[in-house]
Amino acid sequence: MPRRPTLEFWFEFASTYSYLSAMRIEALAGAADVAIRWRPFLLGPVFAAQGWTSSPFNLYPAKGRNMWRDVAREAARLGLPPLTRPDAFPQNSLAATRIAVHGADEPWIGDYVRAVYTAEFARGQAIAEPGALSALLNDLGLEGPAIVRAATQEPNKSRLRSIGEEAKSRGLYGAPSFLTEDGELFWGNDRLEQALAWAVGDRPAGMR
Amino acid sequence: MPRRPTLEFWFEFASTYSYLSAMRIEALAGAADVAIRWRPFLLGPVFAAQGWTSSPFNLYPAKGRNMWRDVAREAARLGLPPLTRPDAFPQNSLAATRIAVHGADEPWIGDYVRAVYTAEFARGQAIAEPGALSALLNDLGLEGPAIVRAATQEPNKSRLRSIGEEAKSRGLYGAPSFLTEDGELFWGNDRLEQALAWAVGDRPAGMR
Repeated sequence: MPRRPTLEFWFEFASTYSYLSAMRIEALAGAADVAIRWRPFLLGPVFAAQGWTSSPFNLYPAKGRNMWRDVAREAARLGLPPLTRPDAFPQNSLAATRIAVHGADEPWIGDYVRAVYTAEFARGQAIAEPGALSALLNDLGLEGPAIVRAATQEPNKSRLRSIGEEAKSRGLYGAPSFLTEDGELFWGNDRLEQALAWAVGDRPAGMR
Repeated sequence: MPRRPTLEFWFEFASTYSYLSAMRIEALAGAADVAIRWRPFLLGPVFAAQGWTSSPFNLYPAKGRNMWRDVAREAARLGLPPLTRPDAFPQNSLAATRIAVHGADEPWIGDYVRAVYTAEFARGQAIAEPGALSALLNDLGLEGPAIVRAATQEPNKSRLRSIGEEAKSRGLYGAPSFLTEDGELFWGNDRLEQALAWAVGDRPAGMR
């Protein structure tokens, strides 16, 4: 039996387009027989290296206005609940990301990621506080407090820092991003289908 | 007979993603029974208003590297010739844009736009010089020198300046962009199909 190819899914909890990918990647990857490697990371340091002090959607208001409209349209088109903006954007995603780094290879990672994004962009809730995240984990039948505690311990915190270095060294500049085993980089929710196709060897004519 | 809806196609000759849309919009709009209004414009002043002195693909190298790879993949996927980068990017598109403003409502506009983009991104040629553009017009059976002359006269030059103001006042921040009659703005080649669908009243559930 041939080995299933793996696609790395790099996502940022504060990112609206990461939300659109996170909600559907597990189903699409399953249908394509591709394994997902969940790669939570923080865009802040990546943006800072580009000279940005906030989300480009805040720095460039015209772009930001159309982003919210576009994500609302895309959410509707993909059958997701009506988009609800959290009060603050971008949300501080540090605590949520540490938990995802801690659980990246656990069977609950997909459910956790979708629960966080659903709270943030379908219900418009804040996701910054560990207490809120612990409650989401409890709702999934997990030990919220213990997971939150493990996520804030030093080995996990330094793992997140190295992931940030890895993101920059592998050429990432935004989220979501998809990386195939042969190093092909796809950026943006609009490329999810093409990244999966590439992962299984289905490439546009003439492309290697 | 119901009136055909119109979709405005805002494009910049230096823009790679505008190229991907320009090569296919006439066929897709024809199939959807949508009329195209060709809206050539210059991104330079729009970018300058955002504090950018060049293309973001030059200002942010990681983003630029992946853009070239992505456009090559997309060109292949769309059945266009292999992408060939012109020596300088972005190309100075002023002369080409003035001609397109002059001819925006002429029957030859689509052929002209595709001829310029094909020279630039399929053959990797420079498009800055009026002489090269005049030759492209001649190849289409038009009076190249006369059109180039008309395009550089004052009424046309000031028309291009007002178009730049219009772009900013209508919320444009990049190219290609698509505007429907009811003012819905779609940004990027990836939204061409959705812009056409919106133009004919086919909208995601719950969106108005």
